[in-house]
Amino acid sequence: MGRPRTPLLDRERITTTALQLIDETGDFSVPQVARRLGAQTGSVYHHVEGRDGIVELLRERVCAAIDPGTLELTPWDTALEAWARSYRAAFAAHPRVIPLLMTSPVRAPRVLEQYECAVSLLLEAGFERAGIMPLIIALENLVLGSALDLAAPEAMWELTDSVPTPHLAQALAAVGEGRADRAFEVGLTAFMNHARALREDG
Amino acid sequence: MGRPRTPLLDRERITTTALQLIDETGDFSVPQVARRLGAQTGSVYHHVEGRDGIVELLRERVCAAIDPGTLELTPWDTALEAWARSYRAAFAAHPRVIPLLMTSPVRAPRVLEQYECAVSLLLEAGFERAGIMPLIIALENLVLGSALDLAAPEAMWELTDSVPTPHLAQALAAVGEGRADRAFEVGLTAFMNHARALREDG
Repeated sequence: MGRPRTPLLDRERITTTALQLIDETGDFSVPQVARRLGAQTGSVYHHVEGRDGIVELLRERVCAAIDPGTLELTPWDTALEAWARSYRAAFAAHPRVIPLLMTSPVRAPRVLEQYECAVSLLLEAGFERAGIMPLIIALENLVLGSALDLAAPEAMWELTDSVPTPHLAQALAAVGEGRADRAFEVGLTAFMNHARALREDG
Repeated sequence: MGRPRTPLLDRERITTTALQLIDETGDFSVPQVARRLGAQTGSVYHHVEGRDGIVELLRERVCAAIDPGTLELTPWDTALEAWARSYRAAFAAHPRVIPLLMTSPVRAPRVLEQYECAVSLLLEAGFERAGIMPLIIALENLVLGSALDLAAPEAMWELTDSVPTPHLAQALAAVGEGRADRAFEVGLTAFMNHARALREDG
């Protein structure tokens, strides 16, 4: 007649624990997840389809923070730009998961649906079919590179008297605060201008 | 009177070992490096300034593969584009080191010198001083995002009948081989066009 028990293991808790491990150490293993949850490694495998299954749960978890409504905005370029900003913010919250997710095949159903929406947006906007995935991947490279950069120190260049770098010193002094955000704006503006030009040529 | 001995430890061997560990596991620790070299952890610290010192040796090692002659080409846009291509190739050889180097401050002398060259190139080309670092960082985000993407599987999206994604399927089929390279070209073209436009406005 005790209080209702929280289940020791479920997919949510496994995902949360794996994400904590990655945030802290840059990686995770199934035995580490089991140990943190006070469970046997074999028990974890009863809930997920191996390590790859956890990777896809992580992808769904992180991508759930991307606002799907962005892709329904009009016109198409407003939608694409808003999606890129929301995408960057979602991954900036967990930058250490980026290399793992960028190098594992995408299987998570809700994430595949999000790609379907992005492709449909660009098809409807009139983009040539063969150019759509290169365009989306180029945007992702910019977004994920920038999200990783948000995890860098604000003072990223430590100059020293032993190496004369007067122009670098002046350029750094001229930027002021928020260099990561300013760089993202430059990259996103470049990308959006190019996408608009590509569509007009098509 | 034996044969000349190869020293058990030197900075070159420590760097090579740390890079191998990162290529294999995504990270390294000083005790792991010591173990692989058959040395005590304390002995490694006699050769390098701690873990951070090894990170900077790794940065010098990976960046040594960037052709410094690219930044001396003319005109400036030919130089910048060639530098970006060489930069991507250097990091594509060691994609798992990217998150580590992107999130640690740059101290390596030869790498600081390379930034000095890049900044000088853009100053001489007539760019406004405050915009130069955002421009360089935007290019790095694109380059490093694309280098990480080169480590992804060619078949990055695994579609399934349970999630209808007809437009994504068609868009993927239309890309053909080399999606990572095509995406990099899109991003680089966008960036270079924007950089040229910024300079003309300045």
